Amino acid sequence: MTSGADQAGGTDMSGGNLSESWLDAVRWDAAGLVTAIAQELGSERILMVAWMNREALAQTAATGRAVYWSRSRGRLWRKGEESGHVQRVRELRLDCDGDVILMKVEQQGGIACHTGRHSCFFSRLEDGQWVAVDPVLRDPETIYK
Amino acid sequence: MTSGADQAGGTDMSGGNLSESWLDAVRWDAAGLVTAIAQELGSERILMVAWMNREALAQTAATGRAVYWSRSRGRLWRKGEESGHVQRVRELRLDCDGDVILMKVEQQGGIACHTGRHSCFFSRLEDGQWVAVDPVLRDPETIYK
Repeated sequence: MTSGADQAGGTDMSGGNLSESWLDAVRWDAAGLVTAIAQELGSERILMVAWMNREALAQTAATGRAVYWSRSRGRLWRKGEESGHVQRVRELRLDCDGDVILMKVEQQGGIACHTGRHSCFFSRLEDGQWVAVDPVLRDPETIYK
Repeated sequence: MTSGADQAGGTDMSGGNLSESWLDAVRWDAAGLVTAIAQELGSERILMVAWMNREALAQTAATGRAVYWSRSRGRLWRKGEESGHVQRVRELRLDCDGDVILMKVEQQGGIACHTGRHSCFFSRLEDGQWVAVDPVLRDPETIYK
């Protein structure tokens, strides 16, 4: 079996079976999607939350690189394809009712958010206001050329 | 202003304003819900993911205790109301596109999952199979009496 795992530097967690029961165990919503959380190995920070369809999850497991389904673009979104901010996936977990995927990832470039921040969760509620408390690490205009 | 914060031992992050712009900043879905993640302070483990409506989020912020919207029961769900496994909320964050809430919580009883496990994310993908890798800490039958 030839997977993209070696090329991507990731780990194949699928056992090479992409049409098997582990994908059926996911409780896909009416649109065929599941919520996916990327949590950074080491810091344990939650970097982002997005969506996967069956193909995105299968590719993620086989290649060890996070692949999402972009609802706005209506296509697979290989995280980092434009920004270079690839996520290497070291572990995949499923929650007890099967409708959320948790990925443990290594975030290349240290930036997951399109705003140039480490994490998409940079706004904290303080006295009834959302306050951006994390710094912009890189100007988004220099990320998306 | 009298909130439930003191009684609950939580922190009022709402500034007492429950009908204000911070609630409007959330991008509620068509059903009026937003995804909510509970992450444990200290261990940084993700304990569970559920849903909130506007009232649930307002109560969570005002009382410092996690309140969700139960889709199956069609009502507010004060986490721990049956199990005693209350979540004290120490921080609330919102992601960059406003459709996911992240809570930093202290998990009373050390159990978030209805299966009696610490976290709902106890299944890990190994060679194409979901394997339960975390122990049951308490028999669910002794939790839900």
